[in-house]
Amino acid sequence: MKSDLNQLMQDAGLDALLVFGPASHNAAMVYFTDLHHLSWGYLLKQRGQPPIHIHHPMERDEAKATGLSTRNQNDFDYKEIYKKSGGDDIKSQIELLIRIFKEYKISGRVAIYGQYELGPGLSILKGLDEALPEVEIVGESKARSVLMKTRVTKSEEEVDRIRRMGQITTSVVGDVANFLTALDVRDNLLVDRSGQPVTIGDIKQKINLWLAMRNAENPKGTIFAIGRDAGIPHSAGTDTDPIPVGQPIVFDIYPCEAGGGYYYDFTRTWSLGYATDEVQAAYEDVLDVYQNVSASILPNTPCSQYQDLTCELFEAKGHPTLNSAPKTTDGYVHSLAHGLGLEIHEAPVFYSAVDNKDLMLPGTVFTIEPGLYYPERGLGVRIEDTVYMRPDGELEILVDFPKDLVLELPRM
Amino acid sequence: MKSDLNQLMQDAGLDALLVFGPASHNAAMVYFTDLHHLSWGYLLKQRGQPPIHIHHPMERDEAKATGLSTRNQNDFDYKEIYKKSGGDDIKSQIELLIRIFKEYKISGRVAIYGQYELGPGLSILKGLDEALPEVEIVGESKARSVLMKTRVTKSEEEVDRIRRMGQITTSVVGDVANFLTALDVRDNLLVDRSGQPVTIGDIKQKINLWLAMRNAENPKGTIFAIGRDAGIPHSAGTDTDPIPVGQPIVFDIYPCEAGGGYYYDFTRTWSLGYATDEVQAAYEDVLDVYQNVSASILPNTPCSQYQDLTCELFEAKGHPTLNSAPKTTDGYVHSLAHGLGLEIHEAPVFYSAVDNKDLMLPGTVFTIEPGLYYPERGLGVRIEDTVYMRPDGELEILVDFPKDLVLELPRM
Repeated sequence: MKSDLNQLMQDAGLDALLVFGPASHNAAMVYFTDLHHLSWGYLLKQRGQPPIHIHHPMERDEAKATGLSTRNQNDFDYKEIYKKSGGDDIKSQIELLIRIFKEYKISGRVAIYGQYELGPGLSILKGLDEALPEVEIVGESKARSVLMKTRVTKSEEEVDRIRRMGQITTSVVGDVANFLTALDVRDNLLVDRSGQPVTIGDIKQKINLWLAMRNAENPKGTIFAIGRDAGIPHSAGTDTDPIPVGQPIVFDIYPCEAGGGYYYDFTRTWSLGYATDEVQAAYEDVLDVYQNVSASILPNTPCSQYQDLTCELFEAKGHPTLNSAPKTTDGYVHSLAHGLGLEIHEAPVFYSAVDNKDLMLPGTVFTIEPGLYYPERGLGVRIEDTVYMRPDGELEILVDFPKDLVLELPRM
Repeated sequence: MKSDLNQLMQDAGLDALLVFGPASHNAAMVYFTDLHHLSWGYLLKQRGQPPIHIHHPMERDEAKATGLSTRNQNDFDYKEIYKKSGGDDIKSQIELLIRIFKEYKISGRVAIYGQYELGPGLSILKGLDEALPEVEIVGESKARSVLMKTRVTKSEEEVDRIRRMGQITTSVVGDVANFLTALDVRDNLLVDRSGQPVTIGDIKQKINLWLAMRNAENPKGTIFAIGRDAGIPHSAGTDTDPIPVGQPIVFDIYPCEAGGGYYYDFTRTWSLGYATDEVQAAYEDVLDVYQNVSASILPNTPCSQYQDLTCELFEAKGHPTLNSAPKTTDGYVHSLAHGLGLEIHEAPVFYSAVDNKDLMLPGTVFTIEPGLYYPERGLGVRIEDTVYMRPDGELEILVDFPKDLVLELPRM
């Protein structure tokens, strides 16, 4: 967590961090600034020093609201720089950064972070590197960067925010269940009062509405995938498709705090009215694996062992897995889990390999999401909760929600 | 527009474009893929060839839905590459790109695009550059890149989508006006039926809700800034503040299509119940400048001349401007306008300088947004519409909306 940052910088031989970009939908920046209306800026953090936000002149009040030390880019004569460069956004950023680095006497290894347009980012950093021989620009691996190592364990306050997003998420999932089960059925499809089939697009729009009502945002969309689509883990479902009874629906929802903050990630598989024996059997296999794996997770153990365990359990039930058949698209075809926080996918990673050294550290928030996929049989099942490896070593599901496969349809 | 891309690549001596990242909230990618649920991928476009999307193996159906030529990253043995790299996301991306570049015989100058995490992006491109001596990686200026030059003029279909976003935006602005003017007033503040003051945060949450109802998204938030806050152009307003009568409110709203598509940008300044003489006078100055500048805009003229004209008009009315007082934070303190489309700020730019060579090309969609700011007097005024320089040279406001300063409060 954030209190580890100076030590982790020291361990990695980093002298400073430089974060590019806005303070929304930009995890590295939001980690320092929190959610404020800052469209553009730099965050400079020297080892052992408090972070400094360098802001646009029109955003001085918003920058101050972060509670960080702030500087106005015009303190570095940015307007003059920009004019002199002939309005060249690359040259002027290079010169601005040179002035900032000189004023703060930055030297040594400086790691770069932030979601930013890659082309100009590349040229800005190349120019900075050439201009400042005393500085080494470091572009770390995303999953193993110093900042990700800092972010992987969460403070109580961060966990509370993720849990609050979980309450919002499951509340919306409940609304969706209530909406679906109050509909009529005609020709095996859900229909509204006028007899028109309700579509996946209708459901997704309601989800966005119900999230907005709760001050949440859904920047990455929702998976509401039925039948064959449910059998392809990332298939989001087709907006114009109607919603049939008796087919598996993979409903995977991963909203964040409005403004681009903390995420939650949650999946249920439903079958409306009834489930076929085949779907029921697959569901029971997934639920059994979910429960067994969840019960086995211990602090400070390698994450990869839980992917291996999941594969073993599915294989024992007769399903192919990425371990038994690396190119399979049938059976268990993805990772068990991923860390989450200010991004939907963070460290730790759970893929199976001896060189995956990620550990289940106390303080980690992550998903557990085993699934089975048989697209040609029109079948996909996934169950996912977001969980917290507490400092006391206990695993806590952040928000409980029923795991029923069949949603009864009283009006069928 | 897109049909100009091959020629613009030729003019700039580019042999290929490579776009990184997801197909949502990533303009360069969405420009090719449109809005699909693609979390991760590359878009490769060789000059004179159709673009190719290289997708995640779990997103094959979503990739196909783009209508583009698609390749699965596993066609290039990505899983093997990733394992061999020891799960190193930088090494494995470099090797994947080397294989893609070799298969498609990419050589020469390759421009890089896309919103991407800058640290790993930098290392991936450095590795690619070193591995392929026949390739030169090009990081262009954002405002002047080949892709931005392509995007600056819009097709009829793009204009229709922006106009549709304008209809949604102004419809929500109308809802806000209706909501505000139906409230009661107590102690010069708007209050709800229970007598509680309504806050800026309440209004912003309703805006998000009303946008979600219309299948729009608000990833960058809303400016609803009152009094002194209105006097700072980028100040978004403070959520906990109540809403007083008789003070200027700058309401600037810039949502996009759900999933991260085309934007609209729109501002009105309101004063509830009545306006002070000072605010009324500033408003009339801004409206007069808005009308004069709008009427003067002609196709194929330099954009910078309209910033100069705006400054001249405001100076003639006695206001400081960035031309007369470059460091002023009073008066007219920003640019007249900016292009917009898949990003809220695109080319052309309108700053005042002889080296701003951007022209008002037919087909451009842009804002017109003069304003006056006197924070110490608790005063800010801005009027903004999104307009279209049509191919016939006529300037069209995409969506009309009343420009009344005072919103009458029947219940005051």
